[in-house]
Amino acid sequence: MTMANTPASVCPRYHHAIELVGRRWTGAIIRVLLAGPVRFHAISQAIPEVSDRMLSERLRELEAEGVVTRRVVPETPVRVEYELTEKGRALQPVVDALMHWAESWVEPGPDRAAS
Amino acid sequence: MTMANTPASVCPRYHHAIELVGRRWTGAIIRVLLAGPVRFHAISQAIPEVSDRMLSERLRELEAEGVVTRRVVPETPVRVEYELTEKGRALQPVVDALMHWAESWVEPGPDRAAS
Repeated sequence: MTMANTPASVCPRYHHAIELVGRRWTGAIIRVLLAGPVRFHAISQAIPEVSDRMLSERLRELEAEGVVTRRVVPETPVRVEYELTEKGRALQPVVDALMHWAESWVEPGPDRAAS
Repeated sequence: MTMANTPASVCPRYHHAIELVGRRWTGAIIRVLLAGPVRFHAISQAIPEVSDRMLSERLRELEAEGVVTRRVVPETPVRVEYELTEKGRALQPVVDALMHWAESWVEPGPDRAAS
């Protein structure tokens, strides 16, 4: 415990990190991708509440952050998959810690059944 | 690794949890409060970019979620402190995991120096 009136200022890198993973739908998308490479449609099915437009936007943001890569598999028809990078896979302990917290502390409620 | 086309749907409790802690400034506020009970002004000083109005709103949300308690200490003048509940303190491993990730993967950049 530090003194009540002298908290350290918040690390900007932590601040960036928590607001990146906490952005609307991003945490859910990362969780889906932790299971392995996945196609756009499958992410969309796993998170039915997110629109395709929003999902594209979030995936582009995660690509720009170096968390996700988009891979084109040269098949007929062409297959496009999304996959976590090493940086993205390194989020596993964060997701695990948050899952554990949610299981212990977040009550399942009717307002959360569809979100 | 699961099959690319069969990801599990995302647990609503996890989804609620990650978007709670990732809400703008909330992750930073929780980090400050993990150090111990703290007055409004001191949180504000630790996160100079957040307005008092936004800080009040976030603290009220965290109170409503049972993560933070507001405590009035009967002194002259009256002292108001904010403190994490047991539910709030249980977020320590989440914050630790995210700090660790941020230190390893988020580059300190000029755009983050002030956020």
